[in-house]
Amino acid sequence: MIENIRIVLLGTTHSGNIGATARAMKTMGLRSLYLVAPKAEPCNEEARRRAAGADDVLENAKVVPELLQALTGCGFVVGSSARPRSIEWPALSPAAAARELVAVSATTPVAVLFGPERNGLDNNEVEFCNALVTIPANPEYSSLNLASAVQIMSYEIFGQLKENPTTITQDQPLADPVQLRQLYQHLATTLDELAFIKSGSSTKLLRKFVRLLHRARMREDEVDMLRGVLTAIRAVARSSKTDNS
Amino acid sequence: MIENIRIVLLGTTHSGNIGATARAMKTMGLRSLYLVAPKAEPCNEEARRRAAGADDVLENAKVVPELLQALTGCGFVVGSSARPRSIEWPALSPAAAARELVAVSATTPVAVLFGPERNGLDNNEVEFCNALVTIPANPEYSSLNLASAVQIMSYEIFGQLKENPTTITQDQPLADPVQLRQLYQHLATTLDELAFIKSGSSTKLLRKFVRLLHRARMREDEVDMLRGVLTAIRAVARSSKTDNS
Repeated sequence: MIENIRIVLLGTTHSGNIGATARAMKTMGLRSLYLVAPKAEPCNEEARRRAAGADDVLENAKVVPELLQALTGCGFVVGSSARPRSIEWPALSPAAAARELVAVSATTPVAVLFGPERNGLDNNEVEFCNALVTIPANPEYSSLNLASAVQIMSYEIFGQLKENPTTITQDQPLADPVQLRQLYQHLATTLDELAFIKSGSSTKLLRKFVRLLHRARMREDEVDMLRGVLTAIRAVARSSKTDNS
Repeated sequence: MIENIRIVLLGTTHSGNIGATARAMKTMGLRSLYLVAPKAEPCNEEARRRAAGADDVLENAKVVPELLQALTGCGFVVGSSARPRSIEWPALSPAAAARELVAVSATTPVAVLFGPERNGLDNNEVEFCNALVTIPANPEYSSLNLASAVQIMSYEIFGQLKENPTTITQDQPLADPVQLRQLYQHLATTLDELAFIKSGSSTKLLRKFVRLLHRARMREDEVDMLRGVLTAIRAVARSSKTDNS
């Protein structure tokens, strides 16, 4: 469902790119634009000029200070990444990402996340993503303009919507990043109490867990279930500590 | 062969779009840019800024006054069209157009032609094209930015090149627009002498012929053969006139 598909721009530094993104979205029927902590004025003259007839998308863009606010309610988040990354993360082609975005959007909001023009998403931001998408490009010059990358992803999504207008892959709402974040926090504390996490290796270990769980596209009831298990584990860990003391 | 694939911009009115086109091309490995009678300065500050690291493509762009000069030697020309047109013309999806462009480019130069930002290609310009390509878009707002349209076509071409790096569909060079134009002129004169073309309906009839012949992707030796037949027909037509006079 096209209303469920969000484009999220994070820390954008050029007004023109925000306007051009609105235009790229609207040509492919997308309307839901989120701007997280933009570093450029999102509705100035340059943005409006580049938006052309898509100034409605620009004016209705939601500006929020924190990434999580743009992803609230989203059951599937894809991050755009220009280059291979130091952290390994599930990678999808644009067509595969579009297929999954459209399928999940039948019941739950989804998002495609784009980082700042110069540096893209950092590793902490990647952790909000179920998968990364990399647009195949010239290895010697892969620097797509931000709005061009949005155009290609929107084009792939539009193609999928036309092909599978009513695909539904699940009937339960998927967990959103807020619920997932709480789960991961819960997991971190629990592992800590189990003395699994030694300082130094903790970030890496947790990241592996997060990556694995992300791949599963968890439903809300599954997150609840996992958290129930974690609570039980912590109770055991604590009582064993009390016994030993 | 990527060196054989040209992007041709006709009568472009914004320098920024020329620069952004160079960038879009280079991200997908394309380097051969032709500018036909541009209405904007192709290498000013705005163009360079939008080209970002692709200023080499911009600087090497060939500026020519006439469309035919940009298409010389091309065995297959695809015109980009935003909307359904008054004249019917063979239509390809972006992926199908890319497939054929890449296949033909194995032996012969090919071109993707983009008209001016506001109006696109006119009917006379469409007649240079073997086929039209329309990027699927929101029917209520299909106004893709020029460089965005180039980005999508380049992306599709890059995808095809990666998939079929060595496809070869023919071993004979295809006829280029100059040879085809001469053939059509020859055809027009011949039909005229046969009294087939009455003033008024002539343009329409000829266009149907041109469309049909374009679909065939004629080789040079086939054009020569057809022109031989036309010459023979004209000789008969003239001698029959002489007999009747």
